[in-house]
Amino acid sequence: MSKAEFLPNRPAITAPALGEPFLLTPGPLTTSLATKQAMLRDWGSWDGDFNQVTAEIRQGLLVMAGISDDSYCCVPLQGSGTFAVEAAMATAIARDGKALVLMNGAYGKRAGQILDYLGRAHVDLDMGDYLPPEPEKVAEMLDADPEITDVFLVHCETSSGILNPLKELAEVIKSRGKGLIVDAMSSFGAVPLTVDQIPFDVMVSSANKCIEGIPGFGFVIIRRTLLEQSKGRAHSLSLDLFEQWQYMERTGQWRFTPPTHSVVAFRKALEQHQQEGGVAGREARYTNNRNTLVAGMRALGFKTLLEDQWLSPIIITFFSPEHPNFEFKRFYDELKARQFVIYPGKLTIAESFRIGCIGQIDERIVLQLLRAIADALDVMGVDQSSNT
Amino acid sequence: MSKAEFLPNRPAITAPALGEPFLLTPGPLTTSLATKQAMLRDWGSWDGDFNQVTAEIRQGLLVMAGISDDSYCCVPLQGSGTFAVEAAMATAIARDGKALVLMNGAYGKRAGQILDYLGRAHVDLDMGDYLPPEPEKVAEMLDADPEITDVFLVHCETSSGILNPLKELAEVIKSRGKGLIVDAMSSFGAVPLTVDQIPFDVMVSSANKCIEGIPGFGFVIIRRTLLEQSKGRAHSLSLDLFEQWQYMERTGQWRFTPPTHSVVAFRKALEQHQQEGGVAGREARYTNNRNTLVAGMRALGFKTLLEDQWLSPIIITFFSPEHPNFEFKRFYDELKARQFVIYPGKLTIAESFRIGCIGQIDERIVLQLLRAIADALDVMGVDQSSNT
Ligand SMILES: Cc1ncc(COP(=O)(O)O)c(C=O)c1O
Ligand SMILES: Cc1ncc(COP(=O)(O)O)c(C=O)c1O
Repeated sequence: MSKAEFLPNRPAITAPALGEPFLLTPGPLTTSLATKQAMLRDWGSWDGDFNQVTAEIRQGLLVMAGISDDSYCCVPLQGSGTFAVEAAMATAIARDGKALVLMNGAYGKRAGQILDYLGRAHVDLDMGDYLPPEPEKVAEMLDADPEITDVFLVHCETSSGILNPLKELAEVIKSRGKGLIVDAMSSFGAVPLTVDQIPFDVMVSSANKCIEGIPGFGFVIIRRTLLEQSKGRAHSLSLDLFEQWQYMERTGQWRFTPPTHSVVAFRKALEQHQQEGGVAGREARYTNNRNTLVAGMRALGFKTLLEDQWLSPIIITFFSPEHPNFEFKRFYDELKARQFVIYPGKLTIAESFRIGCIGQIDERIVLQLLRAIADALDVMGVDQSSNT
Repeated sequence: MSKAEFLPNRPAITAPALGEPFLLTPGPLTTSLATKQAMLRDWGSWDGDFNQVTAEIRQGLLVMAGISDDSYCCVPLQGSGTFAVEAAMATAIARDGKALVLMNGAYGKRAGQILDYLGRAHVDLDMGDYLPPEPEKVAEMLDADPEITDVFLVHCETSSGILNPLKELAEVIKSRGKGLIVDAMSSFGAVPLTVDQIPFDVMVSSANKCIEGIPGFGFVIIRRTLLEQSKGRAHSLSLDLFEQWQYMERTGQWRFTPPTHSVVAFRKALEQHQQEGGVAGREARYTNNRNTLVAGMRALGFKTLLEDQWLSPIIITFFSPEHPNFEFKRFYDELKARQFVIYPGKLTIAESFRIGCIGQIDERIVLQLLRAIADALDVMGVDQSSNT
């Protein structure tokens, strides 16, 4: 979709309140004032009005994943995204199952850790800090080890910003009849992920990423038959997705106190997501943010960790300049003084930092950021002109 | 503390926005506008400003529990209160430990269920729907079974509203050298609970009860030595309180994405709690709410489930009138139309409903509620005059 196609419908992005920085981070991110204002009232968690909100967001998320029948269920869960990932893995992988975990960063690694807590067998394909898992290699591993029942992978590995080749991997995995568990935490809502294209069994995301809500809960979209089979499988009362689902189906309510304000804000965020043209509209804006950011940063002498083909429209890792005057903490503070909050890097191989493309920011704000970065480098006495 | 002593300092209670009902529920409850307005900006979860908020609330909670040295730690955890209870139990009770669970309602029962998920041995003292556990009986059970290592109990069992005899029970438990785990979810902040009076090992509560915050996290106050011993004991990555604590101590940050807006609102709520005179001030207001409510309801012909000595200043269970025209759903709707949301009962023995005394309500609002109840009964044709 071209810029011209989505811009006319898009609500204007307004600067945050005076003194409040823009969050160029992987979330919690800068949300719209309307989303935050939805939190200015209190809701009884048992009341029908609130149950209605819950029903609407569950339905809206299914639609976003391209689901129009009852073959999948959407189960929201209190807590951060990790809680939902853990609940999803405990639900989807049988106690005597074995998972192949594709790792190329912090979130793939964390999935392996979760399986250790759960006492589930797993083998890992660890590609290090940022290399994509190759579909051929995954095929090989699956063919070599028929005990593997499920494959876990991260769509956008936020620790480097790489957008993993989900479609190719899904084909390999599903053609071998394995369960497919996708952590789409940082991509869902801004990168197309629908069951017709990616026949996942489980997909996990959370409120405060590309749908631009407020943190407080994650959600799992899961194949109904799989969820039905999982009764009694959970290791934790709080993270028991089957019971969470059953209770919600029966009563319309959350099993334990819901993060009411975050839920209501999320409905408002979903509304704005739709007004922007849904996933396509959001993808277009974030992609434009990324393109503006990457071009501008390169002009300033910065280098991206990844080659262009792997750059997500979510977050970008830049190498820190090698100039002796560059120090991340100082750079961070200089940018914060200019109303921009960026994010540290997560690489083991080299000094780096990350800049997010998501949240209530657009090209205009990215251009302001680029000016702030140029200023900060100036003040710090970091001259990269030889790099450009 | 008398009413006159705390009223002068107390910020005025303002009615919620037009059309928004008062929540006379056990939480989420009616919060102040100032608390909600604190959510009108976004915070970077990695940023120093937010870490400062986290540090302040952890410190404020320790002070509220009467802790002035480093013998206890406060560990907040994403999710609802149940998540914090589960994390606390998994941390405090050794894998080969055995718990005595005191039950007289839904939340004591839930603790037993959690132990079943955790695979921890437990014996229960189940007093049914609302009878208090007797200290003598608990002493007897502890003396009869030396394998018991820990006792779990609920301070205010919100399902009936009973305030359990915590001090007497704590004496029995600690005199026998057992671990004491208190679920003070619905009482902490409004009923005194300090380590000098109640030498607990673990205390659990959450943001959206008597401190009048927004739901999104719970917190555990735990003896430091106990927490230190618990490394590797957790059954769940997300609920691993030891790791949550270690990470927070090391970085000042939450281990996974925090419910930023709820955390910042909580700081605002703590500020107002202090302005109201701390626990004593809040207890005085809630007690006054309760006394006004109970007297008014009795005048209208209602009967409380509990005798006066067991009535908490948190929530009160009333029997539903036996009048044939009384139907809870209708009663609920009539009250909601008058801007009051009440709560269903949780008794197995009789039809009942509950009315909360907590949140941003005062005597004046309770009096309005009583008028609304009289009106509702009138409209429904429920005449209780023979009862009064
Ligand atoms: C891909 C991915 N998975 C998992 C998580 C964990 O989510 P949370 O921090 O909400 O627990 C994140 C958070 O950024 C993420 O980007
Ligand atoms: C005493 C008690 N314990 C536990 C809970 C569970 O808390 P949550 O609903 O936040 O999980 C509650 C909730 O009302 C409670 O009152």
